[in-house]
Amino acid sequence: MSSVLIVGSLTASTLARRGFNVKLYEQKCDIRTAPVVKGKSINLALSERGRSALRLLNLEEEVLKNCIPMKARLIHDKNGNKREIAYGKEDQFINSVGRRYLNEILLNEAEKYSNLKLCFNRKLVSCDFDEGKFTFASDSEEKLEIVEADVIIGADGAHSAVRREMIERIPIDFSQIYIEHGYMELCIKPNEKGDFAIEANFLHIWPRGSLMMIALPNLDRSFTVTLFMPFKQFDSLKTSEQLFEFFETNFKDAIALIGKEQLAKDFFSKRPNALISVKCKPYNFGKRALLIGDAAHAMVPFFGQGMNCGFEDCFILNEILDTNNNNLKDALPEFTRKRNADCFMICDLAMYNYVEMRELVNNPRFLLRKKFDSYMHSLFGRKWIPFYSMVTFTRIPYYECVRRKNFQDKLIALTQYLAMTSSLLAIFITIVKLKKFHFLNFNKIL
Amino acid sequence: MSSVLIVGSLTASTLARRGFNVKLYEQKCDIRTAPVVKGKSINLALSERGRSALRLLNLEEEVLKNCIPMKARLIHDKNGNKREIAYGKEDQFINSVGRRYLNEILLNEAEKYSNLKLCFNRKLVSCDFDEGKFTFASDSEEKLEIVEADVIIGADGAHSAVRREMIERIPIDFSQIYIEHGYMELCIKPNEKGDFAIEANFLHIWPRGSLMMIALPNLDRSFTVTLFMPFKQFDSLKTSEQLFEFFETNFKDAIALIGKEQLAKDFFSKRPNALISVKCKPYNFGKRALLIGDAAHAMVPFFGQGMNCGFEDCFILNEILDTNNNNLKDALPEFTRKRNADCFMICDLAMYNYVEMRELVNNPRFLLRKKFDSYMHSLFGRKWIPFYSMVTFTRIPYYECVRRKNFQDKLIALTQYLAMTSSLLAIFITIVKLKKFHFLNFNKIL
Repeated sequence: MSSVLIVGSLTASTLARRGFNVKLYEQKCDIRTAPVVKGKSINLALSERGRSALRLLNLEEEVLKNCIPMKARLIHDKNGNKREIAYGKEDQFINSVGRRYLNEILLNEAEKYSNLKLCFNRKLVSCDFDEGKFTFASDSEEKLEIVEADVIIGADGAHSAVRREMIERIPIDFSQIYIEHGYMELCIKPNEKGDFAIEANFLHIWPRGSLMMIALPNLDRSFTVTLFMPFKQFDSLKTSEQLFEFFETNFKDAIALIGKEQLAKDFFSKRPNALISVKCKPYNFGKRALLIGDAAHAMVPFFGQGMNCGFEDCFILNEILDTNNNNLKDALPEFTRKRNADCFMICDLAMYNYVEMRELVNNPRFLLRKKFDSYMHSLFGRKWIPFYSMVTFTRIPYYECVRRKNFQDKLIALTQYLAMTSSLLAIFITIVKLKKFHFLNFNKIL
Repeated sequence: MSSVLIVGSLTASTLARRGFNVKLYEQKCDIRTAPVVKGKSINLALSERGRSALRLLNLEEEVLKNCIPMKARLIHDKNGNKREIAYGKEDQFINSVGRRYLNEILLNEAEKYSNLKLCFNRKLVSCDFDEGKFTFASDSEEKLEIVEADVIIGADGAHSAVRREMIERIPIDFSQIYIEHGYMELCIKPNEKGDFAIEANFLHIWPRGSLMMIALPNLDRSFTVTLFMPFKQFDSLKTSEQLFEFFETNFKDAIALIGKEQLAKDFFSKRPNALISVKCKPYNFGKRALLIGDAAHAMVPFFGQGMNCGFEDCFILNEILDTNNNNLKDALPEFTRKRNADCFMICDLAMYNYVEMRELVNNPRFLLRKKFDSYMHSLFGRKWIPFYSMVTFTRIPYYECVRRKNFQDKLIALTQYLAMTSSLLAIFITIVKLKKFHFLNFNKIL
């Protein structure tokens, strides 16, 4: 569920706006002229970090007009009962936005700059970082194209070619992990009246322990449904009967929404996609190359931060250039310094939520904590922001979010301890009083 | 400190011996004709796992003749005092052996098989795993060579090209970590009489917390000295004066042994080498390709298991072929199944020893535990083998070694608890007795 081109085109425009001569090389064709978007999830949840970067290009408002706000999770249990869990305060929501639309608006923006050149169907073959020469192959033409540049920025996704070239040359800590679960996209079409078939302004979740389904609304009033489960389980469903029985057990209310025929057709025409988590350090190769977005930190999609974090990379790069006299070369090592620990953290958090989203949303402790957090937030304002809100509705660095959460956790543990001690004390005093009372009565009787 | 060619040639011979037609492709030239071995550490510590694999080819005895047994660590403290810490029992030792010698004897062995072809100066360019076609480039000739094979085994080191090709095609969990420390090789030459300048049958260690130096004996009566320290610290030593002062503080007794002039010459003519830890999963690509040795699990050198583990890969592969009718294709997934958890474990253990070797060897608790382990081993034999001995002197799977160590740890904790409780009880009884005695006396006085 990466967001390759959108981070690349956003960053290209941001740099062009600052006066740099930019060439944007994209391996695929121009999505604006392509009939179907292959392979990638088709909608994303835009929140504060992503919005901040769009704001730089004055695109936030326009994008938001084309989003569907989701104010809460809507949890579907096995019996078809639904329960709302808000994301934040009344006026806080995350925004379902189409990947294709985002691609289009960002490419249209990029085309406005005379100092930005767009090149599609170009695949990076090799890098000569020292000489600043980068070789691209194209699908249509046979010959290779050598591009000269002072700096190359790899926003080329989880399987980044720029990163591959960097790893061959400098010592880079790197890890990639595939999780046990794959994902498959299904669809809930608009109902007969042409309206949303289920509540529109929610992120629908069917959490089922080892598996999970979610649905995000689209502008055409359909929902993109994503089923997450272990590859083994995908493989075990071989016939329509098995599939329907599986849905009957786990996602009963979704069968009618998707439609039996459509469900079987979609399910058996696709292979589930893999989910990868990627970390690396550093993000820069001296003052020559930089990795951003999924190329630097691909994450599993369970915190809804993949695109937002990629966009925030662009925001941070812009912020560094603001403070260093627009010196792009100097900004590269500074970017690693400023961003590495935060991005490691969000990759870990996303992996943590991979379990939490499937299980803890159903957990009474999770709900109790949410209520407590909201109460504390209403009392202390910005001094006590619930963890999810810090990550989603602020630009507090990810690492700092976790530091603050840990502090909150300690304070809660202390409160619980004090509460328990005072309860015990109260019980003790009550017993003593009862005894005394009993003793008095006893005396009376005597 | 990888052991690329030695694992490759050992495995090639082992497979040729079993009747397979084998081609061994090596990127470098034939080491037997090369004047100097570049880059890699020049001696290794051979122990049981490595010896087992050599035994398969009846090479163990000959190799051991060319080793120098090291029966213990010899710890050099800052004042030049030395302290022995045995590796195991009286008759247990690890064996210092030259990398070049090992390479030579294994290549000579490989050449004996008519069904084994050696090809040097060949670099793997690309793999077509489905078609079983592998493309190599050579230094001398311009054209590419396409080699057909049912199976490719990548014993091509920490930066494996086979692994790179696999990672591009199938989901592989992969991590590489560079540690903060680099290493540099220095040398202690034989003394004026042509003899070993320091005790021969030891692995000399100068543990100094954040840094460490070791020395292994060579057949020519020299020692290969390896200095491990953070790259930053290497960089901070810019002049001979700084270098000598640094040695004066940390490795005073080594200055005369290495010689001031030689020390400065060696130190300033080299760059420290990086140390990498690599894990991946799976090791096989279906029934087409397999990674072994450092290509599968490069580790930091602090447990002396890098080569031994690589050789054991060969032993395990041979063992699988023994039990499956010599079916190499079927052996590949089985190898991953059998070997993955163990190799993850030894990579972690080596990393753990990266701290332990620098610090804990100086720690009284470490020494106490060693004594206790030896005592328990003398009482219970194979039921209580000290951890280091399990790893070094047996072929108990690495993962199982750790399981047993954890059990030992729990038992020790329990013993300590019981000992403490009974001590307290004893003290209590003594006090009571004293009081009684006192009381009696007191009575007498009355």
